[in-house]
Amino acid sequence: MTEVIRSAEALREKVAGWKRSGALVGVVPTMGALHDGHLSLARAARSQSDRVIVTIFVNPMQFNNPEDLKKYPRDEAHDLALLEADGVDVLFAPGPDEVYPEGFASKVSVTGVSGPMEGAHRPGHFDGVATVVTKLFGMTQAGRAFFGEKDWQQLQVVRRLVRDLNIPVHVIGCPTKRETDGLAMSSRNVRLSAAERAIAPALHRAMQDAARAIRDGAPVKAALDAAQGAIIRAGFATVEYLDLRDAETLEPLQDLRAPARLLVAAVLGDVRLIDNIAV
Amino acid sequence: MTEVIRSAEALREKVAGWKRSGALVGVVPTMGALHDGHLSLARAARSQSDRVIVTIFVNPMQFNNPEDLKKYPRDEAHDLALLEADGVDVLFAPGPDEVYPEGFASKVSVTGVSGPMEGAHRPGHFDGVATVVTKLFGMTQAGRAFFGEKDWQQLQVVRRLVRDLNIPVHVIGCPTKRETDGLAMSSRNVRLSAAERAIAPALHRAMQDAARAIRDGAPVKAALDAAQGAIIRAGFATVEYLDLRDAETLEPLQDLRAPARLLVAAVLGDVRLIDNIAV
Repeated sequence: MTEVIRSAEALREKVAGWKRSGALVGVVPTMGALHDGHLSLARAARSQSDRVIVTIFVNPMQFNNPEDLKKYPRDEAHDLALLEADGVDVLFAPGPDEVYPEGFASKVSVTGVSGPMEGAHRPGHFDGVATVVTKLFGMTQAGRAFFGEKDWQQLQVVRRLVRDLNIPVHVIGCPTKRETDGLAMSSRNVRLSAAERAIAPALHRAMQDAARAIRDGAPVKAALDAAQGAIIRAGFATVEYLDLRDAETLEPLQDLRAPARLLVAAVLGDVRLIDNIAV
Repeated sequence: MTEVIRSAEALREKVAGWKRSGALVGVVPTMGALHDGHLSLARAARSQSDRVIVTIFVNPMQFNNPEDLKKYPRDEAHDLALLEADGVDVLFAPGPDEVYPEGFASKVSVTGVSGPMEGAHRPGHFDGVATVVTKLFGMTQAGRAFFGEKDWQQLQVVRRLVRDLNIPVHVIGCPTKRETDGLAMSSRNVRLSAAERAIAPALHRAMQDAARAIRDGAPVKAALDAAQGAIIRAGFATVEYLDLRDAETLEPLQDLRAPARLLVAAVLGDVRLIDNIAV
C-alpha cells in the first residue's frame, strides 16, 4: 500500500519513525503525470533505499508561463496506481498552500549552471526549482534523491545546490527513458497531436547525428547547424537552443572535450520539448 | 575537552556518530570574539541538547563593509578556552574556503522581514546571514539552534527561513545579555574608547525611556523623537534607525500593539551599535 500524505507535518512524523529504525530514505521529486521515466527513478530508489517517497507537486514557482502551468497534465489517481504497483511507500502530494503558506518569503537561487539554456528561456525557472527542491529535501529528510538525466541542466543545478548549501542528501542521476523510436519520455508528450508525435523523434535523431559527427571530428558549429536544419525540416517550429556544453559546468564548448553534453530545446506545435545526450 | 573541527566532512562524521546513539544536537552559530552573551547561548544549548556545537565563522558574505570585516575582532584561542570551561563538545571553526569553496554559486534570500533596518542599511547582509545559516544547519544537522535576541531582526529572518525552507531545526531565541550599566553585550564593544564606553549605555536608557512612554500612552512618534534626541545629545554621531515594529513581521507600528519591539542602530565614534527591547 502506498500511503498518500499531504502535509509536511504528517510526513515529518512518518519519516521520524522510519529513521528511528535506521531506515535510509530515498525520494523521487516529480510533478506527476507519471510515465516510465519516473517509474525507473522509483525503481532505482527502491533498490538503493529502505523506504521510498515519491513527491508530486506541480510547482507554480518554477513555471514562468501561466499557460504552461495550467496545461500541465494532472492525474493523481492514475499516478497513485502506478506507484502502488512499484511498491512505493509514500506518495507525498501537498497542495500549493502547504508548500507556500501565507507569509512565505524565501528563495534559493543558483548562479552559473542555471544561467544559459532553460535559465535564459524560462526566467525564474531554476529559482523555483532550487527553492522547491530545497524544501522537499527538508520535508522528506531523504538521504538519497533520484533525478532524471532528461532534465540535465536541472540535475546540475540540484547537484550544485546540494553541495553549496551542505544539504545532507546524495543526488543520483538516472538515464533518460525513451520510447522505442527514441523520443525522450516526458509528461508533455501527451499534448502532441498524432502528426506531431510522428515528427517528434526527429529531435533525438538529429542529436545523435550531431553527436556522432562531432565525435568523428566534424567542426562543432557545422554539426550543430546541420542538426538544427534537420529539426526544422522535420516540422519543428523553432529551435530555442542546441548547444554543446561541458557536462557539469555547462560552459559552452567550441570543440570536443569530455565529458561533454549536447542539449536542445525545440517547439513542436505548441509543445516545448527538451532533450540531451552525452557526446 | 572541546574538540576543534575545521572541515564539514569531519563534522558530518562526528555528528553521524552522535546521531546513531540518538543524541539531540544543539548548535550556537557565532562569529567568535565570544562574550557572556554567547556563553549564555552555549549554556542554553547545553541544558536543552545532548551535544553542543559552537560554530565560529566570520562570514564575509554578510559584511557589506570590507573595513568592518577587517576590523571584526578575532581571538580563537581565548574563545576556545571559554567554550572548554562551559563544556561545549565541538568548536566548528571552518576557514572561508571550506564554507565557500571554488565554484560556490548559491544564495538563500528572505524578503519581507529582511527589508528594513539592518537590511536597508547593510545591503546584502541578510542574504549572507540566510545563506551561511542554511549551510551551518546542513553541516551540523542540529535539531536545535540558539540565537541571541540581541540581533532581533536576524532572529526573525532565521525563523522565517527555517519555516519557509522546511529545515528540520528548532530555533530558540535567548535574551540579550547586558553589562551592569545596560549596554548590550557585543563583540564590537571592545572597539569603543574609554570615553565612548562611558557614553554607550545612553542607548539602552533612551530605549527604556521610550518604551515606558509608549506603554504609558505617549504618541509613538513623539516618544521616538525624544529618544533619538537623547541618544544624539549623549554623544552618538548618528541614529541610523529607531523604530517601533511588530515583533515578528517587523512591520512598522504607528501605535502600540503587542507584541511590539523597539529597535535601534546608532553610531558611536566609528562603532555601529544595535539594540532592541520589548515594549
